[in-house]
Amino acid sequence: MKAARLYEYDPAMNVRLKIEDVPSPTIDRPDEVIVKVGAAGLCRTDLHIIEGVWRDIMDSHGSLLPYIMGHENAGWVEDVGSGVTSVKPGDAVICHPLRTCGICLNCRHGHDMHCQNNLFPGLGLDGGFAEYFKTSERSLIKLNTGITPLSVAPMADAGITAYRAAKRAAKLLNPGDWALILGVGGLGHIALQVLNEMAGCRTIAVDREPGAQVLAKELGADKVLSGGPDLIEEVRQITGGGARVVIDFVGELGVENLCWKLLKNGGDLIMVGYGGTIEIPTLELVAREIRIGGSLVGDYTELVELMELNADGKVKMHQTEFALEDINTAIDDFKNRRFTGRGVIVPGAPSARRVEERTAEAVK
Amino acid sequence: MKAARLYEYDPAMNVRLKIEDVPSPTIDRPDEVIVKVGAAGLCRTDLHIIEGVWRDIMDSHGSLLPYIMGHENAGWVEDVGSGVTSVKPGDAVICHPLRTCGICLNCRHGHDMHCQNNLFPGLGLDGGFAEYFKTSERSLIKLNTGITPLSVAPMADAGITAYRAAKRAAKLLNPGDWALILGVGGLGHIALQVLNEMAGCRTIAVDREPGAQVLAKELGADKVLSGGPDLIEEVRQITGGGARVVIDFVGELGVENLCWKLLKNGGDLIMVGYGGTIEIPTLELVAREIRIGGSLVGDYTELVELMELNADGKVKMHQTEFALEDINTAIDDFKNRRFTGRGVIVPGAPSARRVEERTAEAVK
Amino acid sequence: MKAARLYEYDPAMNVRLKIEDVPSPTIDRPDEVIVKVGAAGLCRTDLHIIEGVWRDIMDSHGSLLPYIMGHENAGWVEDVGSGVTSVKPGDAVICHPLRTCGICLNCRHGHDMHCQNNLFPGLGLDGGFAEYFKTSERSLIKLNTGITPLSVAPMADAGITAYRAAKRAAKLLNPGDWALILGVGGLGHIALQVLNEMAGCRTIAVDREPGAQVLAKELGADKVLSGGPDLIEEVRQITGGGARVVIDFVGELGVENLCWKLLKNGGDLIMVGYGGTIEIPTLELVAREIRIGGSLVGDYTELVELMELNADGKVKMHQTEFALEDINTAIDDFKNRRFTGRGVIVPGAPSARRVEERTAEAVK
Amino acid sequence: MKAARLYEYDPAMNVRLKIEDVPSPTIDRPDEVIVKVGAAGLCRTDLHIIEGVWRDIMDSHGSLLPYIMGHENAGWVEDVGSGVTSVKPGDAVICHPLRTCGICLNCRHGHDMHCQNNLFPGLGLDGGFAEYFKTSERSLIKLNTGITPLSVAPMADAGITAYRAAKRAAKLLNPGDWALILGVGGLGHIALQVLNEMAGCRTIAVDREPGAQVLAKELGADKVLSGGPDLIEEVRQITGGGARVVIDFVGELGVENLCWKLLKNGGDLIMVGYGGTIEIPTLELVAREIRIGGSLVGDYTELVELMELNADGKVKMHQTEFALEDINTAIDDFKNRRFTGRGVIVPGAPSARRVEERTAEAVK
Repeated sequence: MKAARLYEYDPAMNVRLKIEDVPSPTIDRPDEVIVKVGAAGLCRTDLHIIEGVWRDIMDSHGSLLPYIMGHENAGWVEDVGSGVTSVKPGDAVICHPLRTCGICLNCRHGHDMHCQNNLFPGLGLDGGFAEYFKTSERSLIKLNTGITPLSVAPMADAGITAYRAAKRAAKLLNPGDWALILGVGGLGHIALQVLNEMAGCRTIAVDREPGAQVLAKELGADKVLSGGPDLIEEVRQITGGGARVVIDFVGELGVENLCWKLLKNGGDLIMVGYGGTIEIPTLELVAREIRIGGSLVGDYTELVELMELNADGKVKMHQTEFALEDINTAIDDFKNRRFTGRGVIVPGAPSARRVEERTAEAVK
Repeated sequence: MKAARLYEYDPAMNVRLKIEDVPSPTIDRPDEVIVKVGAAGLCRTDLHIIEGVWRDIMDSHGSLLPYIMGHENAGWVEDVGSGVTSVKPGDAVICHPLRTCGICLNCRHGHDMHCQNNLFPGLGLDGGFAEYFKTSERSLIKLNTGITPLSVAPMADAGITAYRAAKRAAKLLNPGDWALILGVGGLGHIALQVLNEMAGCRTIAVDREPGAQVLAKELGADKVLSGGPDLIEEVRQITGGGARVVIDFVGELGVENLCWKLLKNGGDLIMVGYGGTIEIPTLELVAREIRIGGSLVGDYTELVELMELNADGKVKMHQTEFALEDINTAIDDFKNRRFTGRGVIVPGAPSARRVEERTAEAVK
Repeated sequence: MKAARLYEYDPAMNVRLKIEDVPSPTIDRPDEVIVKVGAAGLCRTDLHIIEGVWRDIMDSHGSLLPYIMGHENAGWVEDVGSGVTSVKPGDAVICHPLRTCGICLNCRHGHDMHCQNNLFPGLGLDGGFAEYFKTSERSLIKLNTGITPLSVAPMADAGITAYRAAKRAAKLLNPGDWALILGVGGLGHIALQVLNEMAGCRTIAVDREPGAQVLAKELGADKVLSGGPDLIEEVRQITGGGARVVIDFVGELGVENLCWKLLKNGGDLIMVGYGGTIEIPTLELVAREIRIGGSLVGDYTELVELMELNADGKVKMHQTEFALEDINTAIDDFKNRRFTGRGVIVPGAPSARRVEERTAEAVK
Repeated sequence: MKAARLYEYDPAMNVRLKIEDVPSPTIDRPDEVIVKVGAAGLCRTDLHIIEGVWRDIMDSHGSLLPYIMGHENAGWVEDVGSGVTSVKPGDAVICHPLRTCGICLNCRHGHDMHCQNNLFPGLGLDGGFAEYFKTSERSLIKLNTGITPLSVAPMADAGITAYRAAKRAAKLLNPGDWALILGVGGLGHIALQVLNEMAGCRTIAVDREPGAQVLAKELGADKVLSGGPDLIEEVRQITGGGARVVIDFVGELGVENLCWKLLKNGGDLIMVGYGGTIEIPTLELVAREIRIGGSLVGDYTELVELMELNADGKVKMHQTEFALEDINTAIDDFKNRRFTGRGVIVPGAPSARRVEERTAEAVK
């Protein structure tokens, strides 16, 4: 099969993936499933893998290179192990990014990301930037009728990470409350749509990029701000004291110490982005009774819920598609912010240096 | 002032209210407020008062007749007691139906309806079918800029009763879940709008009246059913096993023993309508782990939240307006279902046997 | 191996189980586990199986007789399938009563009892009234150091059913609230201990049996009542208006229509027992805002939590033990209420018509 | 009346309060109440007031000196305003520290501490280190039969601050979880008792003072640690990965950046103490999904619940009592940690330089 493999790490990111023919994956255990990849989202984590950030973690048992990345996968079931009963060849599916055991206590509580025996295809074993990809029965969700793998692949990781944070927010918010989103990129634009459908609140979207601001407006943000030096005062004016919930999809570059200042007393900060270090006086936490909590990629059941919202036409992924052969172009465009929303790799598509640019209409 | 007073109870409902001049209410306590009535909703409870259903409760300390009904009131502050600080003459306000003490433990928990020292103007003391009406500071909510008393009066009781039930439902519902509403009248059409804004679920609206079905469709119900003999099977087919939440605004005429059969395992029935008696095998409750819970008129804070949704243009009252002089026509039309949604009495309006019929456009 | 098998149903309950030698169970699938039975609790459901109540459900695919009952099992792992990783031969374990798939959406949410592909050893396939018993890896919980299978077997079903109800209650209760337990038998005496540890509330225990009343007192109930004709008034006096939560472990014989009358406004009834039919006016539900909800056997994670409480010495099973050979004596004593708490079958124990009577001291 | 007044601020804390005769407070508004002080707790905040820390906030409308401190008050109603209905002269009461309006939205939600019109007797107006003290009807809770003001006064502030944090923790904790308390002083020893009654969890108490360690052990902590350099590793060993909930009553001196390292993945830190600044990488928050939230003094309803726990004998205040005349001794002993638990001023008691030292037996 055709696959894009990484042969060396490069902090300068000048290395290119090699498109080559490799053996297709095969079933080794009764619960395994081979998926013909329909589309695979390109994630910022993929850039970090190329840079070598994850090298030590991934190579702990010997170098994995050369290696197929790609952890936001959707496609069609190609083959199943002897114990698989819930999907069959031909089924259109989206793949939760983790392969989980279903036995440990974290799995029993539904906390897939904290499975004590998890595997993460795309980080540490071969992923989905290829024609075929191997995962387990427990990771698969059948797509609703009429939904194509191409239209949902990045929901598998970007989508549920945003959904998990936005759903937590929605259960805290009531009408009249303000929710504020920092960063309207691949994750933030999903969170905004989820809040609109589930919270009954008012929303402020903050992003420096004009393209992201336009998108936020189209997606129904009540206020769109560019995040200049007066942001705290602007937010205080608009909200009458601060936001009930802030979701920070940036988490670095100074935003991590701006975010909690935008909260009203009793408010909640949900932190999704990372990189920076929060410095907050305990007096601020106590006297204002604010809460700060991290949020990771979503659980399997959250991906199920997000797919239902998508099937209902309520939440759509804003994306730009690339053929597998053009993956290096895609990575280059991503690094240089030449597209908004999510980039998606489409294995079967004819190379065109860029298949199609779906922008505003993709989210309508 | 002009007021419509009831002089005798009549189970046959042939009695007419008398429009007459009576002394305006006056401030007797430091926390009291006189409101110039802008509009007052007409509630099914008003019909029951005329029938004498509430006679024993209301007359327990001597006959109150003649008596001014009306407990869904909005208007402008006319005069305030010496201790009032949060409103001043001229403020546009909506009135929570209860006058509460703010001291008892139920008040401290925000459970206004269960205040141990409550008064209920319109039931047991003079209400709002008049030019002026007396309540307390704790019952008042200032209207948002641009909102008129006329557009929101029935929110004070019909609105928050529906909102309380729908908000409880919204916190239980997730995407992919179905919510089902039995009865799309003055309450049900509000609940439907609230679910659309706050729950991210799918909705089924059930009503026998074609007008109500049209309204439900316009308000965005995913499915609208007429509630015939196949309802249980229809719902099972649509939902794949039953609704996660059912809100029953009827509660009698057999609906009370149909409602819980529409639930999926683990589902919740929220009961708002009343009159009938539920008969349910304990085995059904246990084996299916379903829950049945009553819901009364909403708290003050719920009315605040509903007014915010209304100010945001997300929830609107579908209503038909009548001059105070035409109140007997309004009652007659209500009894004979000659209008849909809520009937509203407008003290200042010129008599025309029916001021205006706002139907579909009122809710757009 | 030795096993007690049922050869015919008998509504009059005069039939006796036959103690005989049968082939031991063997591993057929990679996730299966054979457990050497240390102890197996005797449940009221076992009496109903003998009576033939479950006949139609269990025999739907052909008669299962002769058949080994027993669904409250604990013991030591004897053998494991090729895919089992979390337990090994020799481990002391307790067995959640259901064998679940881990794949369906209910399993993903942790709702084991509602697994769409569940098997129930003891109901529909051979259970634990034998020397060996077969289940699946997903059903097993390793016992804490120092805990014996004999001391916890009935926790597997009676215990978690009570725990699930009491934990739900505990999350609703606050200091100063009253919780009321109807029926202090094998389930109720566990619920009482759980409330004492987790709720900070006051408790009323109601039971007609003097032995159960003594036990309730020993376990720390604040008030113990016999449930005579004045119960409603007694409870109203003690609680100042009603209990915040009532747990009904009876659910029949008239108790099902007494239970909800013991609630205060805004209170919750948790229904665990069954048999009767609740008849409740919708007006009662609505005006008093009470809730009624069924509760079934607990989830796997709830059994984990209960085993932790037991390991901490906070919740103990009050039980009477019988050798496997004496199972017909045990059934007869159970039918005629000759012991309190739970009866437990001990396969390895020497016959003595009754191994040991552990009463008050078992719970100290 | 006799009162202890502060005449000047002194960062060195060498100043002494002056015991003198001043006019008793009088009723000025219909909702006011005069309380004859039975006891008044001595709080760390009182030391800060003397130091002048609060000077700018308190003196913003002109110097308040000379001034009566004391905000943890209990006693007997002496006189009531014309509008007061819920208490009468002679009633034994405890006083929530804030005087609240009951009208603003925060009051309506029960968030007394965030009342937009609050007054704080003892900080900014005369408090309870005197024979009489003035507050409002909304701040009073009648004591249960047999409870004396002397036994509960510090519950009014120290008690509910600890209770609020511990109750929030209890609703998050399940059996088998570990809760960890940093600091077993006037607040921590209350939180420990509350967790024991309401959470069903295991507890670790950490304090450097041997006296506090003895107290923690007596109050039932499962593990008591001194908080040396190996604390993180010790806690990881005991808990198997970290505590589900940490409550930090210190919040400074380095503890503020130790506390969150003691959490397991998915855990919650509740911050009550303050002074230091938390520095936490966003990656730590996100990858481990931990939450950090401040907790302030409790609501009125929380003081009601705490008084119920106390009336049930489940939570007791460990305290040392001083006559009003000996208040300077009390302050000096407090500064130099010559007693454990709380110091309490008793206006009517004969001077003895120290009335009584109630230690271990006070909490039994």
